[in-house]
Amino acid sequence: MSSTVRSGPGAARPLFVVIDGVDGCGKSTQARLLVQSLSEQDEPSHGAVHLREPGSTDLGERVRALLLDRSLDMGAEVETLLFAAARRQMLDELVRPALAVGRDVVCERFHPSTFAYQAVAGDLEEQAVLDLLHGWASEPMPDLIVLLEVPVEAAATRRGAATDRIEDKGNAYHERVAEGYRVYAKQDPRVVVIDGTQSAEQVATAVAEAVDRARQHATSVTGAKPCS
Amino acid sequence: MSSTVRSGPGAARPLFVVIDGVDGCGKSTQARLLVQSLSEQDEPSHGAVHLREPGSTDLGERVRALLLDRSLDMGAEVETLLFAAARRQMLDELVRPALAVGRDVVCERFHPSTFAYQAVAGDLEEQAVLDLLHGWASEPMPDLIVLLEVPVEAAATRRGAATDRIEDKGNAYHERVAEGYRVYAKQDPRVVVIDGTQSAEQVATAVAEAVDRARQHATSVTGAKPCS
Repeated sequence: MSSTVRSGPGAARPLFVVIDGVDGCGKSTQARLLVQSLSEQDEPSHGAVHLREPGSTDLGERVRALLLDRSLDMGAEVETLLFAAARRQMLDELVRPALAVGRDVVCERFHPSTFAYQAVAGDLEEQAVLDLLHGWASEPMPDLIVLLEVPVEAAATRRGAATDRIEDKGNAYHERVAEGYRVYAKQDPRVVVIDGTQSAEQVATAVAEAVDRARQHATSVTGAKPCS
Repeated sequence: MSSTVRSGPGAARPLFVVIDGVDGCGKSTQARLLVQSLSEQDEPSHGAVHLREPGSTDLGERVRALLLDRSLDMGAEVETLLFAAARRQMLDELVRPALAVGRDVVCERFHPSTFAYQAVAGDLEEQAVLDLLHGWASEPMPDLIVLLEVPVEAAATRRGAATDRIEDKGNAYHERVAEGYRVYAKQDPRVVVIDGTQSAEQVATAVAEAVDRARQHATSVTGAKPCS
């Protein structure tokens, strides 16, 4: 899928790729396919790392349980702080160490989700949310953010009945979430928007092409330097 | 203990009082004595509210369990975000509603703890921590912050063996925490420092006097306006 040289002198540096978009847009499927494809290009011991947010660490999974717990009531500010805590933990514990040993990282959700769900749909000041994320949970930033765009109704059909506190928030909220992703995409040059209504294979091909371009860009900018 | 009129026309507005200081400085004892004394001045249904941080809400107690869990490893940034989340929840769920119906609030720990433990002892940029707290978890700010000052060795003796992840951090860390409280006190005019090595009764008298002065100040500034 990629022709970029991944080992030896002049090797490309590993990539941090985020797959994001509304619930039901196909993030998990695409993240899995991308991890498989990246891992096939690598030594077996050296495959890509698959993460999801919030979670992936022990602390993050416990924060996830809080965020989704229907017995708790919390405002968008508390949600934002909890997502930022889980994200920082994941960056410290998993992302930086993986990149440091040359492994690619593929993560479901990142800043675009917080911006869409908490800032836009949750009615917080957008710049304050971005400042919090950039100040507290952005080392490293992704090399590429793939946004899978799917109409709100199609996503609702795909995900079925609500099963947690955030899915419970209803259609108007989820329409604002979708709008939030579009606003985010306009202000972050790392974002590539891909039509998520295509077949899974078509989407995977488009994702792989975006990853190849990001790898070529990263290599041309940094050469073979490992990510610090 | 206080002669300020608390009900009827011209009533003083309720106060938000924080008792803070190193582990083992006597915060819980003094918070309990202050709540008793304030509640005796009030209608029985209208006593002061006693809170502790992190915690007091369901969400906050679950965040507290994470923060103190010895099986988890996390950096000072993650700690700061989790403390801020628990604090914001407590302000939204308990502090503002209590003040709105005229009840005083007494809380063990607040911004001085985060500044001392995470910013100073945890080696974060002090202004970044203050900005986070002021932007995300400061409505309302306390009317009065009582810092109980106790020498580090005396506090260590009082609290005995370490029982959680933060107490585990050792003497050098706890000396920097004590220094952090002194730095905080210099930059927040709400702080009154009280010698915590006196008898509990002597400390309680000094705390009550500080509360009376804060009440007079709040009344002279805002008159009988309820806290919004």
